[in-house]
Amino acid sequence: MTKYVYYFTKGAAEGNAKMKDLLGGKGANLAEMCNIGIPVPPGFTITTEACVYYYKNGGKYPEGLKEQVEENLKRLEKETGKKFGDPENPLLVSVRSGARVSMPGMMDTILNLGLNDTAVKGLAKVSGNERFAYDSYRRFIQMFGNVVMKIDSSYFEHELEKMKKEKGVKNDTDLDAEDLKKLVERYKEIYKEQTGKEFPQDPKEQLWLAINAVFESWNNERAKVYRRINGIPDDWGTAVNVQSMVFGNLGEDSATGVAFTRDPATGEKRFFGEYLINAQGEDVVAGIRTPHPITKEQAKESGLKSLEEEMPEVFKQLVEVYQKLEKHYRDMQDLEFTIERGKLYLLQTRNGKRTGFASIRIAVDMVDEGLITKEEAIMRIDPDAVTQLLAPVFDKEDKEKALKDGRLLTKGLNAGPGAASGKIAFSAEKAVEMAKKDKVILVRIETSPEDLAGMDAAEGILTARGGMTSHAAVVARGMGKPCVVGAGELEIDYNAKTLTARGRTLKEGDYISIDGTTGEVIEGEVKTMPSEVINILIHGKGKIEDSVVCSNYVKIISWAEEFKKLGVRTNADTPHDSKVARSLGAKGIGLCRTEHMFFEEDRIKAVREMIVAKTTEEREKALAKILPMQRSDFEGIFEAMDGLPVTVRLLDPPLHEFLPKEDEDIKELAKDLGVSFEELKQRVESLHEMNPMLGHRGCRLGITYPEIYKMQVRAIIEAALNNKKKGLNPLPEIMIPLIGFKAELEYLKNILTEEIEKVFEEKGEKIDYLMGTMIEVPRAAITADQIAEIAQFFSFGTNDLTQMGLGFSRDDAGEFIKIYLDKKILPHDPFQSIDVDGVGQLVKIACEKGRKTNPNLKLGICGEHGGEPKSVEFCHRVGLNYVSCSPYRVPVAIVAAAQAALKEKN
Amino acid sequence: MTKYVYYFTKGAAEGNAKMKDLLGGKGANLAEMCNIGIPVPPGFTITTEACVYYYKNGGKYPEGLKEQVEENLKRLEKETGKKFGDPENPLLVSVRSGARVSMPGMMDTILNLGLNDTAVKGLAKVSGNERFAYDSYRRFIQMFGNVVMKIDSSYFEHELEKMKKEKGVKNDTDLDAEDLKKLVERYKEIYKEQTGKEFPQDPKEQLWLAINAVFESWNNERAKVYRRINGIPDDWGTAVNVQSMVFGNLGEDSATGVAFTRDPATGEKRFFGEYLINAQGEDVVAGIRTPHPITKEQAKESGLKSLEEEMPEVFKQLVEVYQKLEKHYRDMQDLEFTIERGKLYLLQTRNGKRTGFASIRIAVDMVDEGLITKEEAIMRIDPDAVTQLLAPVFDKEDKEKALKDGRLLTKGLNAGPGAASGKIAFSAEKAVEMAKKDKVILVRIETSPEDLAGMDAAEGILTARGGMTSHAAVVARGMGKPCVVGAGELEIDYNAKTLTARGRTLKEGDYISIDGTTGEVIEGEVKTMPSEVINILIHGKGKIEDSVVCSNYVKIISWAEEFKKLGVRTNADTPHDSKVARSLGAKGIGLCRTEHMFFEEDRIKAVREMIVAKTTEEREKALAKILPMQRSDFEGIFEAMDGLPVTVRLLDPPLHEFLPKEDEDIKELAKDLGVSFEELKQRVESLHEMNPMLGHRGCRLGITYPEIYKMQVRAIIEAALNNKKKGLNPLPEIMIPLIGFKAELEYLKNILTEEIEKVFEEKGEKIDYLMGTMIEVPRAAITADQIAEIAQFFSFGTNDLTQMGLGFSRDDAGEFIKIYLDKKILPHDPFQSIDVDGVGQLVKIACEKGRKTNPNLKLGICGEHGGEPKSVEFCHRVGLNYVSCSPYRVPVAIVAAAQAALKEKN
Repeated sequence: MTKYVYYFTKGAAEGNAKMKDLLGGKGANLAEMCNIGIPVPPGFTITTEACVYYYKNGGKYPEGLKEQVEENLKRLEKETGKKFGDPENPLLVSVRSGARVSMPGMMDTILNLGLNDTAVKGLAKVSGNERFAYDSYRRFIQMFGNVVMKIDSSYFEHELEKMKKEKGVKNDTDLDAEDLKKLVERYKEIYKEQTGKEFPQDPKEQLWLAINAVFESWNNERAKVYRRINGIPDDWGTAVNVQSMVFGNLGEDSATGVAFTRDPATGEKRFFGEYLINAQGEDVVAGIRTPHPITKEQAKESGLKSLEEEMPEVFKQLVEVYQKLEKHYRDMQDLEFTIERGKLYLLQTRNGKRTGFASIRIAVDMVDEGLITKEEAIMRIDPDAVTQLLAPVFDKEDKEKALKDGRLLTKGLNAGPGAASGKIAFSAEKAVEMAKKDKVILVRIETSPEDLAGMDAAEGILTARGGMTSHAAVVARGMGKPCVVGAGELEIDYNAKTLTARGRTLKEGDYISIDGTTGEVIEGEVKTMPSEVINILIHGKGKIEDSVVCSNYVKIISWAEEFKKLGVRTNADTPHDSKVARSLGAKGIGLCRTEHMFFEEDRIKAVREMIVAKTTEEREKALAKILPMQRSDFEGIFEAMDGLPVTVRLLDPPLHEFLPKEDEDIKELAKDLGVSFEELKQRVESLHEMNPMLGHRGCRLGITYPEIYKMQVRAIIEAALNNKKKGLNPLPEIMIPLIGFKAELEYLKNILTEEIEKVFEEKGEKIDYLMGTMIEVPRAAITADQIAEIAQFFSFGTNDLTQMGLGFSRDDAGEFIKIYLDKKILPHDPFQSIDVDGVGQLVKIACEKGRKTNPNLKLGICGEHGGEPKSVEFCHRVGLNYVSCSPYRVPVAIVAAAQAALKEKN
Repeated sequence: MTKYVYYFTKGAAEGNAKMKDLLGGKGANLAEMCNIGIPVPPGFTITTEACVYYYKNGGKYPEGLKEQVEENLKRLEKETGKKFGDPENPLLVSVRSGARVSMPGMMDTILNLGLNDTAVKGLAKVSGNERFAYDSYRRFIQMFGNVVMKIDSSYFEHELEKMKKEKGVKNDTDLDAEDLKKLVERYKEIYKEQTGKEFPQDPKEQLWLAINAVFESWNNERAKVYRRINGIPDDWGTAVNVQSMVFGNLGEDSATGVAFTRDPATGEKRFFGEYLINAQGEDVVAGIRTPHPITKEQAKESGLKSLEEEMPEVFKQLVEVYQKLEKHYRDMQDLEFTIERGKLYLLQTRNGKRTGFASIRIAVDMVDEGLITKEEAIMRIDPDAVTQLLAPVFDKEDKEKALKDGRLLTKGLNAGPGAASGKIAFSAEKAVEMAKKDKVILVRIETSPEDLAGMDAAEGILTARGGMTSHAAVVARGMGKPCVVGAGELEIDYNAKTLTARGRTLKEGDYISIDGTTGEVIEGEVKTMPSEVINILIHGKGKIEDSVVCSNYVKIISWAEEFKKLGVRTNADTPHDSKVARSLGAKGIGLCRTEHMFFEEDRIKAVREMIVAKTTEEREKALAKILPMQRSDFEGIFEAMDGLPVTVRLLDPPLHEFLPKEDEDIKELAKDLGVSFEELKQRVESLHEMNPMLGHRGCRLGITYPEIYKMQVRAIIEAALNNKKKGLNPLPEIMIPLIGFKAELEYLKNILTEEIEKVFEEKGEKIDYLMGTMIEVPRAAITADQIAEIAQFFSFGTNDLTQMGLGFSRDDAGEFIKIYLDKKILPHDPFQSIDVDGVGQLVKIACEKGRKTNPNLKLGICGEHGGEPKSVEFCHRVGLNYVSCSPYRVPVAIVAAAQAALKEKN
């Protein structure tokens, strides 16, 4: 018989921390805490296997589940000495979901389960607080009705408001036990009206309905969306934790709270958290009451009383527990605890979510503390998170000026670091819409899972309520967005679409700025600035050792460099981008696009002259004007990348991209060029293509108009020779795009080599260079053995290889890719993360075939995938020499490359 | 030392017929004829290797060539007893090109080489005819000047005309020896004026210049064009044949002629040819004098005197020779002979070019005669030529009416079978231009290699001059075009652009009709009709055994069926096309496109309603209107293909293809559909795609709008069940296009299977069907193992596979493919003949992977390549189960499949 239920109690649990797949993160850690002697209310976990079985079998429970739950329930009754439905000492439990990885707020939870018309009396007796007992009961009916039976909460809230009006009171707490008893009766009526059934008095019936509801909540809409965004498989299922209740709301000696063993926003090593006296756990997270800080040090900021001061004894216990837990788990922990009449219980521990800032600082600190190794530190970092260290901060002067001008609206909690400035949107929908054109700050009283899309679209998030662990804070940190929460001074009016603070009112669409590192909220736009890392490493403003952020960045990158095998280059086509990338760790350029140079204002005219030329001679004349400009471009880039290889791709896009489309613009250009409108219009039209992606571009242009490519290689080689003369060491690599046939490369190689030899002769000096090709046409991958015979390097253009290999036009596929993701036909967008099975296989074939005929072949990738961690891992596995990505993705690629190498090693 | 020169003389030659690659076709056959005792003027052949060396080494001759030529020249002088430049008995030679395969008229020939101021006197003495000697000399100067020194012939012709005027005569033959002596002097002056050099008097200098000119002529423009059209590699080079001259123009006992051992137009077994008394060989081919027939039987038609009657003794020898040759070569021969003073010499024999008609008749007859085997017969047929048996003939009634109305303009020679009707074009350029819009008949006095493009563009060719072996006749037969030559009654005025015959005048652009099977030329348009094969096999009009053409067709196809392993299906989407294809030998439908059905006038409105629908419900409503129409389409097709498999492809093209593009049409449609113009316009624009080939089409439509595919499978299955009820045996195969991911097929297969089961339930009956997929996205080929797990068949859509695999948009690539062919980057257009190395490899990978996970997988091809012989051979090699092609290509595919199987066997 399969074991579906695992019991846990202090000092003895059937599970442990390693069983996350089976028990879920929460269940496994509850068991683990029990095993290491942490005080945890006893209970049991129903495995994810039971949930998976439930979904695979159309909602049936596996054989044996019922019996095992009964058995463990008896054991729980025995251990606690309480009984389900007992009028003297009733057993109450919480029923919570718990997936392998945390999905905060996405699935359902039911508290106080076991209450009924008799048990409520028992609870009153045991707690000595009738009001508390009936308040718990009416909350339970609402929660159960809403979560399990899908009754809209507003029915209950309406009754509550009515009761308060009848009694002429303002707060829930002003209602007395008798009022609450009446409310319980009304709630039960609502329940019957809405479901057609009596509210179930049998606690076991309640339990099974609750278990079922948790199973079902795995597939609610917001959980599905969350899984898609976070790449969590749908077939994992959730575990269900049934745990005896402890109460943080039994009076002033009771409390509930959450804590982090280190600061989840900055990574600073300080115990850190929030709590509420006389409250249930959900009250802290929900953001309705602003919670108090846990430590005295924290309290300095807010002036609120800390747990350290209020309950020094319990605080001491809590410190012991957190230290034990962090040492045990060797990672920063996110704790939930409850204090019931002065006694501490831990309800949950898990590795705490953190910002990119924090993840790096914590990893580096833990290496310094000897808690983890450098390898572990690297493996713990989400490579994408490294970019948070590069996130902008406010321009110092501009911010100071804003503060001097009195534009500070308020100060909230610094929930997600980084500075952001943008137009106010008061709803997720509006944020999504406005983000198409403008930078947006999503401003909400508090956020809920329904706001996910809007948070994703916004530059930053600002809420009036909630603490550091509120929905907004947790999600924003996950997304790496600047975020300020709990800015209580803000009065937000959704109807009027206004925000008021300190006497100023802002409307939707007005500019606002938030500093997620300090919590400041500023009226109007404030210029943003590069991060400390950027300032120190790129602009040379300041010293590395003076900046914790920057020195941590440098440490992480240097450790990653130690472990990684892949080279990391950058895609850059200006000296500035080249410098930035080099400062961030790039060891050369993998893709220097030359067409961007063609678009610059001072040369587009010559380019257009070249395109509308009717003869080779005319074209050569126009090209002669472009030559000196291209040459000086290359001189600058070679200088910025001195001593490192620079791969220059010859002209790639179809010529019509350089011509105007509208009649007005064509007329103007015709005048400029001294040709008739009709003639130019006709030329523009003759260049129109049905499928430009598969049209006259890349090496096809070079073959039909060899003079263009000849001009380009001349510019490259002349630039290299000029730099060499200056004592520099340029390493040019000439890359020919869109090769599909060896014969194409052969034809161009002959012509271009001849031109290069001509330049050598003219200048009386030579230079080493490579000539190779993009592999982006499926045929090129398939016939790579032939092409490699005459190519010195391959660079995989995985954007085009994806377009052609999958038959997905990047411009058009968005519409059906969305549907494919929804219908689970695609696991992810193949333009974001490489399609390993398809496109990846083409890359693999090309690598193998290419190296067979040319063992010295250099292999790299220069598609957008080169900076995406999963794709980088693939590139490592397939044995490429390097990846190339945009400058700000360079550190991501470096860390991802190190992780890939370490994964392989282990 | 490499042997570059091979000697030949009657009874003893150094080469033989098998050495075509080295000696060229002409040289090898001259050697072979010598070896079997045929009278051939002695000479020697310079190998193609020497020519290849010449091109590879920038125009240098290989070492030893000079010496070997000298040596063989001596041997020739010794054997003939004549000497170069001898004033008593001079050796004269012809210098001719001769490639591996015949390239008629494409390269250069020089006759009478060796004549100079002294040798001409020797020739006068030996021939006893001073006039003949000087006439030969002046011809030689012109030919040498033109061919070797590129002097425009008009300079010489101008002098000739001037001389005739001075003498007041009309014909060349009216000039006497003295006139010609003067002309020789003038010609030598022209030579000097144009070249700056004296006309070379040294015969050896003449010889080397001539050899060089022949080498050079391999790369003249028309030869290059011919090679490209006929797929002859550029690196083969030509041999050079130096042969002692014999003269057909020494008087009335001399003659020259060409003959076919069977009729090259119809294939009939009759000796057949043309000759001219007192003429040189070029006169017969040039079409300036109308030649006489060879046999008495032939003479009946024209009333001209035959060789059989004029020179019965020589004719008897010729008959013996031709029979010997045909028996020896086991194929129809094309002979060139010269009679010098009553003595017969063979100058050339080669396998005769023939029409598709003739090739089949000859092959079938030779099998019946026991001369060749059925296998050989099949291997000898150009599969493409089989389509000539399907070429149209005139509608009998319409033609009779035309004749009764007196519209017969003239009767010429039936040089290329088939009937054609079209607008007159008097130049090749005009024909190319007019052919863009209309059917065109190219009408020329005579054609030359410059007219190739025009001939290619025209429906048929009509010339006023020339015989059955004239340029027009030979080329037209090669192209399979209807052709009438030697219609001497026609007066063609290029300047006035008119044609006059029997008192009627037609202008350029007027309709004319030609019957290449009878030689008739008719004024105005005459309806064309299917061929006998079509009439008998498809329309059931007549009996097979009454028609030679049809019974030969049936034999060839049935033999091919015996040998071939590949199945042959057709691409058809109407009952009519299905019937045609089935009659021609198709064993099922490999591709039934459903979108053509969508375009039909009675249903396009419902289709458009479906497209602009805003909800699934609206879409389903529109689809409900289309369902009965689709069902009845399928019923008809299943009936026509009863008992044979029918592969139906679900909707493939992007939806915007069904919507109007112009505002006018959109307005009209909006009115029809009862929606606003703006709304419809917006919908049309929202469907616009940047790269529709890589856009929202194929299975992507099926996945986003499952209701469309559900309607289609319902129509298919309901139709099949309806036909089954009628006692028929429908075999539907449902094909899903554009699959790239197994998950796509899985998703659709689930939905569609469910719908089919629903139909089965509704109808209370089931039917067998297959469900499979197109393989046309490169990713599908690469991941075929995964897809094959749930597909029952693959059909390779090699059109799209070529587009995506090569990154060539078929709509846009034409421009650069042309350049690629010119620059030899591509050996052929990959859309015409499959790119074996690239696309072929994807097909191969898919076959291997697919069969690995699904050994029962059926494999076919349904791209245009399925009817192209080289591609069919590839399909055989790669192990497909069948090819599918358009109905009229079915016999081509059958023969090509048989050839592929036979090639493999041998």
